[in-house]
Amino acid sequence: MKIAAFGEVMMRLTPPEYLMLEQTKELRLDFTGTGVNILSNLAHFGCQTSLITNLPDNRLGDAAKASIRQLGIQDHWIGSFGDHIGSYFAEMGFGIRPTQVTYQNRRSSSFGKSDAEAYDFASFLEEIDLVHICGIALSLTDETRNAAFDLAKKAHEKGVKVCFDFNFRPSLNEEHGVLFMREQYEKILPYCDLVFGSQRDLTDLLGMELTESLAPSQQFEVIVHEFMAKYGIAHFAGTFRQSEGDKHYLSGFLADSETVVQAKPREIINLDRIGAGDGYAAGILLGVVENWSLEKSVAFATANGVLAHTIQGDVPLTTRKQVKHIMEHPTIDLIR
Amino acid sequence: MKIAAFGEVMMRLTPPEYLMLEQTKELRLDFTGTGVNILSNLAHFGCQTSLITNLPDNRLGDAAKASIRQLGIQDHWIGSFGDHIGSYFAEMGFGIRPTQVTYQNRRSSSFGKSDAEAYDFASFLEEIDLVHICGIALSLTDETRNAAFDLAKKAHEKGVKVCFDFNFRPSLNEEHGVLFMREQYEKILPYCDLVFGSQRDLTDLLGMELTESLAPSQQFEVIVHEFMAKYGIAHFAGTFRQSEGDKHYLSGFLADSETVVQAKPREIINLDRIGAGDGYAAGILLGVVENWSLEKSVAFATANGVLAHTIQGDVPLTTRKQVKHIMEHPTIDLIR
Amino acid sequence: MKIAAFGEVMMRLTPPEYLMLEQTKELRLDFTGTGVNILSNLAHFGCQTSLITNLPDNRLGDAAKASIRQLGIQDHWIGSFGDHIGSYFAEMGFGIRPTQVTYQNRRSSSFGKSDAEAYDFASFLEEIDLVHICGIALSLTDETRNAAFDLAKKAHEKGVKVCFDFNFRPSLNEEHGVLFMREQYEKILPYCDLVFGSQRDLTDLLGMELTESLAPSQQFEVIVHEFMAKYGIAHFAGTFRQSEGDKHYLSGFLADSETVVQAKPREIINLDRIGAGDGYAAGILLGVVENWSLEKSVAFATANGVLAHTIQGDVPLTTRKQVKHIMEHPTIDLIR
Amino acid sequence: MKIAAFGEVMMRLTPPEYLMLEQTKELRLDFTGTGVNILSNLAHFGCQTSLITNLPDNRLGDAAKASIRQLGIQDHWIGSFGDHIGSYFAEMGFGIRPTQVTYQNRRSSSFGKSDAEAYDFASFLEEIDLVHICGIALSLTDETRNAAFDLAKKAHEKGVKVCFDFNFRPSLNEEHGVLFMREQYEKILPYCDLVFGSQRDLTDLLGMELTESLAPSQQFEVIVHEFMAKYGIAHFAGTFRQSEGDKHYLSGFLADSETVVQAKPREIINLDRIGAGDGYAAGILLGVVENWSLEKSVAFATANGVLAHTIQGDVPLTTRKQVKHIMEHPTIDLIR
Amino acid sequence: MKIAAFGEVMMRLTPPEYLMLEQTKELRLDFTGTGVNILSNLAHFGCQTSLITNLPDNRLGDAAKASIRQLGIQDHWIGSFGDHIGSYFAEMGFGIRPTQVTYQNRRSSSFGKSDAEAYDFASFLEEIDLVHICGIALSLTDETRNAAFDLAKKAHEKGVKVCFDFNFRPSLNEEHGVLFMREQYEKILPYCDLVFGSQRDLTDLLGMELTESLAPSQQFEVIVHEFMAKYGIAHFAGTFRQSEGDKHYLSGFLADSETVVQAKPREIINLDRIGAGDGYAAGILLGVVENWSLEKSVAFATANGVLAHTIQGDVPLTTRKQVKHIMEHPTIDLIR
Amino acid sequence: MKIAAFGEVMMRLTPPEYLMLEQTKELRLDFTGTGVNILSNLAHFGCQTSLITNLPDNRLGDAAKASIRQLGIQDHWIGSFGDHIGSYFAEMGFGIRPTQVTYQNRRSSSFGKSDAEAYDFASFLEEIDLVHICGIALSLTDETRNAAFDLAKKAHEKGVKVCFDFNFRPSLNEEHGVLFMREQYEKILPYCDLVFGSQRDLTDLLGMELTESLAPSQQFEVIVHEFMAKYGIAHFAGTFRQSEGDKHYLSGFLADSETVVQAKPREIINLDRIGAGDGYAAGILLGVVENWSLEKSVAFATANGVLAHTIQGDVPLTTRKQVKHIMEHPTIDLIR
Repeated sequence: MKIAAFGEVMMRLTPPEYLMLEQTKELRLDFTGTGVNILSNLAHFGCQTSLITNLPDNRLGDAAKASIRQLGIQDHWIGSFGDHIGSYFAEMGFGIRPTQVTYQNRRSSSFGKSDAEAYDFASFLEEIDLVHICGIALSLTDETRNAAFDLAKKAHEKGVKVCFDFNFRPSLNEEHGVLFMREQYEKILPYCDLVFGSQRDLTDLLGMELTESLAPSQQFEVIVHEFMAKYGIAHFAGTFRQSEGDKHYLSGFLADSETVVQAKPREIINLDRIGAGDGYAAGILLGVVENWSLEKSVAFATANGVLAHTIQGDVPLTTRKQVKHIMEHPTIDLIR
Repeated sequence: MKIAAFGEVMMRLTPPEYLMLEQTKELRLDFTGTGVNILSNLAHFGCQTSLITNLPDNRLGDAAKASIRQLGIQDHWIGSFGDHIGSYFAEMGFGIRPTQVTYQNRRSSSFGKSDAEAYDFASFLEEIDLVHICGIALSLTDETRNAAFDLAKKAHEKGVKVCFDFNFRPSLNEEHGVLFMREQYEKILPYCDLVFGSQRDLTDLLGMELTESLAPSQQFEVIVHEFMAKYGIAHFAGTFRQSEGDKHYLSGFLADSETVVQAKPREIINLDRIGAGDGYAAGILLGVVENWSLEKSVAFATANGVLAHTIQGDVPLTTRKQVKHIMEHPTIDLIR
Repeated sequence: MKIAAFGEVMMRLTPPEYLMLEQTKELRLDFTGTGVNILSNLAHFGCQTSLITNLPDNRLGDAAKASIRQLGIQDHWIGSFGDHIGSYFAEMGFGIRPTQVTYQNRRSSSFGKSDAEAYDFASFLEEIDLVHICGIALSLTDETRNAAFDLAKKAHEKGVKVCFDFNFRPSLNEEHGVLFMREQYEKILPYCDLVFGSQRDLTDLLGMELTESLAPSQQFEVIVHEFMAKYGIAHFAGTFRQSEGDKHYLSGFLADSETVVQAKPREIINLDRIGAGDGYAAGILLGVVENWSLEKSVAFATANGVLAHTIQGDVPLTTRKQVKHIMEHPTIDLIR
Repeated sequence: MKIAAFGEVMMRLTPPEYLMLEQTKELRLDFTGTGVNILSNLAHFGCQTSLITNLPDNRLGDAAKASIRQLGIQDHWIGSFGDHIGSYFAEMGFGIRPTQVTYQNRRSSSFGKSDAEAYDFASFLEEIDLVHICGIALSLTDETRNAAFDLAKKAHEKGVKVCFDFNFRPSLNEEHGVLFMREQYEKILPYCDLVFGSQRDLTDLLGMELTESLAPSQQFEVIVHEFMAKYGIAHFAGTFRQSEGDKHYLSGFLADSETVVQAKPREIINLDRIGAGDGYAAGILLGVVENWSLEKSVAFATANGVLAHTIQGDVPLTTRKQVKHIMEHPTIDLIR
Repeated sequence: MKIAAFGEVMMRLTPPEYLMLEQTKELRLDFTGTGVNILSNLAHFGCQTSLITNLPDNRLGDAAKASIRQLGIQDHWIGSFGDHIGSYFAEMGFGIRPTQVTYQNRRSSSFGKSDAEAYDFASFLEEIDLVHICGIALSLTDETRNAAFDLAKKAHEKGVKVCFDFNFRPSLNEEHGVLFMREQYEKILPYCDLVFGSQRDLTDLLGMELTESLAPSQQFEVIVHEFMAKYGIAHFAGTFRQSEGDKHYLSGFLADSETVVQAKPREIINLDRIGAGDGYAAGILLGVVENWSLEKSVAFATANGVLAHTIQGDVPLTTRKQVKHIMEHPTIDLIR
Repeated sequence: MKIAAFGEVMMRLTPPEYLMLEQTKELRLDFTGTGVNILSNLAHFGCQTSLITNLPDNRLGDAAKASIRQLGIQDHWIGSFGDHIGSYFAEMGFGIRPTQVTYQNRRSSSFGKSDAEAYDFASFLEEIDLVHICGIALSLTDETRNAAFDLAKKAHEKGVKVCFDFNFRPSLNEEHGVLFMREQYEKILPYCDLVFGSQRDLTDLLGMELTESLAPSQQFEVIVHEFMAKYGIAHFAGTFRQSEGDKHYLSGFLADSETVVQAKPREIINLDRIGAGDGYAAGILLGVVENWSLEKSVAFATANGVLAHTIQGDVPLTTRKQVKHIMEHPTIDLIR
């Protein structure tokens, strides 16, 4: 199965050793983005993956493409447009000090300026079986909204499966209200087969209502199935983060039309949490693509998500062997 | 309000990634010192700050001044004298392995060789409202003692507030006995308005006695007020460190003539504890300068002190926004 | 004399050890810009300097300000506006391989979006004696053009000297033709006292004509004085680059209303040529401000420009002592 | 046209900043090899390229493959075999100090242990139009000789063009005499279409004789055409290195059945000469594949070879644009 | 007392900051090995130590010897043989992600190819009082087995004490069965005075049986004394690792002919656990050599082992002062 | 032959990549000094060498000793005294920009404070055949003068050869006049067998006079032999530096009682010239110790000195093989 993603390549610049920007002249350069993260992880699981996006036709765009290939993703659907890559600076937190992300001019990036015209979606869809579309595209610019809708529609029409990720960030939507954003989401959801999101996305963004008379876990099941039925969605998945004293846990759910299965929580020990959610998504995608049981999928995805927290950078680079190892031998801390 | 400090600029050399000196040829260079740390933190809180000290008139002195400015401190009161900057090597500990500091020749530094004649305190005091004097000056050399007394006296006479920090280090005072040191402290205290110290400074160094018939917390209050009354001190502040199993906590107190307020302890997670106490001091200074309640001051200062433990290097670079953030949203570990 | 500059702060990201972007994940971060370069050099010569510009009100803007201060420039006229710092990547060349600069989205930077309204030029001009305005402002955006004209005019009216730098880059002016650009330059020149440029700026950009009947060096003198007379300019200066086989030489000229003096060429040995021209400008500015003879000024400026080629980064960090040293002892290669 | 190469992936470990092994604990890791170098360069020229080789099935093999992809080369013909990657340490020279390469155990590498059985050459040849075989394979082990002969023969039979590179290193052939090696070369040459080598390869290795009665340049032409005729070779190419005082020059030749064309020498300024010869080869291959004139090919290849000397590491990463730039604007040292 | 070790010097290559091989081009280079680790630690305790091994006669062998000397070990018994140093890559784990060691071709190293003939054991034994032999030699190659037996026999005959370390790694013994390995161990044990191992070595490898009727701790004592009596071993020592929830503990035992003493467990906080077991061994060796009580020895060795987990790299570099410090002042985390 | 040196160990801190102190937070740490440099080079030539000096008994002293051992020098005559290592910062120059060395407080170092009482010279001299004494000891402090005289006298009396190095630095002798310094040199010279110096040392420092009636080269020979005869010196050696246009050359001389031989100049290409003179001295020492002809000695020493300019850091790490290589194959720039 050939898996593709549509989304932005971002440049991440990170000071070393938990230093803050003021404290250093050395930065580590990585190229990331939800699509990049998920595809790279799937490539490390052995899938064939391809990214469709636009980058500037200059030295920086070339370096970005080299990095994408290094991560295991094919780059022949990456086009040239504009002259800017959106970037962010990640000052890594420590203990009580939070990680601080500072964005630089994301809306005028090559991706942000590219609408549907800037891509050849028809030919692209000939080559793939499933495409992941990141919800950030709905928030970013008119152009990215336009491209996302066009791609989702064409894929749906062609029978290519569409995986969609809510990824709703209020900070990116200050100019538009919730109602505007709701409309955008409602426009794309009918084309989607697999969706990542949370209960809050259903209630606060889509405006759906919980059946308060039910027990909380039932409320969740009911609203999830209501949502899936409304838009004809085959799978819906997401994560939960819980804390108990100093300890933090990750868990996740996966629903099909009949049931909602939740994984046993796993403790998170955190080296770099940016992008770690994409580890959960990649695990679920693998399970869905390979027709695993819901139980197997959430267990694998949760282990993978936890492992993604222990890796520097946004991109989960885990292999099946590594995930299996921590599922089967969680106490072995040295392999040789 | 213009805040200044009198104290030594030291060069700190730190191996990367918890390596010991034997293990590396790479060192990180920083310029620090109690005065530098406190002023830089206050500058990050938005105050106008200035350091008065002496540095060698050479490339290293120039680099030190550049670094001081970078930290937000004005350098026009930094003079030239001598040809040496006191330095120390910090081998960062990990787990049970303690951080090991090795000093290099501190007494013959430009600062250590400068007495009152080497500064123009009179003009300097025209420009400022409060001056911090670090107690290290009383231990270092005859010259630094002489300069500290002269500055404290002139400031007091002129109505410039004096903030003093006990900072008593037995290792720096092997040649002089406690009685000699007590005399020095007794000489400077009458000029001081705000003092940082501990109960142990009052009993062991100044020789004051606890009223053993009282409950411990009352003993503390009584001796603190006795001390403040004796020397005419408006505010006295300091920190407590407590442990409970593996966990370590920071708390602090601030006393005015009527009451002693203590902060709720906060857990310390430690990236670099050198200079973290200066984070507490900077927080208290901000509160005193801006006339906050004692309660608000100790809460802010403790949060700031805890945050200072999570920052590489001696210098607390926290902003009001960061301190406020961990006070209001202690569980958010990623800001974007 | 208090010297200020109006111009953009840019972020420069440089791979180490002559690596190309594809070859590294480590970048060196610096903050530069014509104004930054010239002021920092003047600060290293002992002048009091201040930059007026806008930066984003975020962690990156704060880091940029810290860097500006470190370079010796006062930052209290740096305001907050927008959310982006223009950046460029410098892949350092070696031998026949040219240095390759890739810009990222310069026009939507905090500086690029700020017009005259975004600054308090009136108060600013109260504090200074001379202001440098970089010609890039005329090419960048409508906002920067507007701000540059407003500042030049107000300064001229107030008797604050205006120093202007042609800095004409065709690559920044693809959308506007030469005639549009000529108008802009003609609008600002009448306010200027000291101008940096070349013969080509006068002929190709301003459309002035050479007196072909004269010898080439006389042609140059005549057109220079014609230009200076037309706009009431007191000093005009610039550099020449010459090659002889493998060797490259820098020279420069400085004209007042009566004469044009040219410096003896010096060989360039090149570590990093970006920003090296600003070393020449800083040298001339120092000479003009301190009323040196034209001969002394061009000799000092040329030596300083040559030295600037041997320093990593855009910013010339030379001191008077260093310039004097290479003028007097050009063969000493080790000072201790 | 799809271009492939058969050859070893080596691990290169390089101390930074011209340090020697004893002087550093930091090494830079790269993956190189003649095939890697040439294919990566061709990929940067826009060709589709693929490497066929074997690597260990472990973390190091995976890292090598990621690096190969990053360089622009497809990795789907890279198989798993053995558990070792041949490596070398490169202590970079400076001035009179030569670069010192120390090999680690090359013969027992995954590549060194793989014979023809270890590859599926038949399927591989279905996909490609031209394959480069590095002559090192003839020197390394019985297995690599076996694999090289098998591949060359099958390619020739199938009409896939074979490009072969003498690459004769006496230091790798201490156990076998010249006669043994001559036999090996004579065995592979009849399958080859394009060969890289030198006059010395023809005389000393193959035992061919110069016609001493002719002028030296004619001697060369005659022996070259004799060699090409004997083995049915369409193109023969190679480089010359010349010195004049301190200056070093690179030139190259390319012969078809009728003529031998030589390029104008270009001065070499050397950052890292390892692998720079592969830059010449890549240039020639591009010209041959695109049917350029011999003159155009040698000029481009020589410029590319000279440029390869200015790039860190073995792998020439030049683009057509860069080569064209130095051919057309050799004196421009800063592009922006 | 002069202490020596016979064993392999390995090259360790480690990515910085918890990065995985794919994520970095920078590696840290160290030279390690059980013998190196133990001797270096003993040298830091003030003992005179010497390593006997073989290294290649090239730049890498020279760099290895320089590193050995730096660690405090004499290198005059290090000979030249072969052309390869066994190496491994250590991708440091974090939290649930295990540290991953990838070996490169250990069996064909200079050490792996050297049999007894390759050393002058007779002269070597003239100079020393105790020699440590690492059990890895029994697994590696025929040559290393041969050399280990020869050395152990000659030392025993000469009255030089032999310290032996089971160090049984199934992954190194896939080609030989347990019975073959048992024979090898049975061959060397009669020459040994001090042995490091575990209960599992006695049961699974040597095939000894537990007296199941006894309580577990008694079972251990009985089998240990049976083992020691059988081979005439004076001291037997080893470590235990225990976990309790998230916490991990290290403890150890030391037996003489009469009793088995076990240390109080200490919590492990882990920076780099590779080689940390050698810290325990070095502590025991010091105690045995200096005739400490068993109790003192295990307490010191356990503290040292725990400290070794907090040090980057394999080599425990602890001093007596440091070990004493954490035994006496376990809560002091900053020494100055 | 066992060669020793008496001299200071200094700490050198160097910014990377030609950066100046202001431009970096990263420094490279090395331990150097004339004695260290010469002994390390001789150790790399295969000699047994030992340093006698004092270092602080702390972490830094231990790191220095580890580094000394790494360089191939025995450390068992290094004692503990004081608490400071003299240090210097080396800002590496480029092209016309000179390398700038800034010293930190050299006189109060462990070495500077140690007089003859602080060493056990008598036992030390039992173990060695030749001792090098650096003339810096005569300039540094009363204590180092005292120790140098005592050592030279005892060595002379015992028949241990004394090698002495003028190393006269006016900058270290500002407080004493030339007459004072002349007395010191006159006091030590009668004990010396091999001396390094220049014609200027004989005329300006010792006050000897040239016979102006002779040709310059004869003047030099006459004064050299006069000097050697006066103090009973067997060998006198030194270097010349010449320039021709942009090119710089190193040459050297060596005199015995009968003749003065001068080497053919070699071009210097300079990576780091600090300590390069010690490369010449080490070459001469090797020749004298091994009784080479004067001609062979100066040729080897000059080649070694030139090579020392191409090595980072003060310490020449050349081997006989490397020196021989550049003498025999000066044009080979890549060895593999």
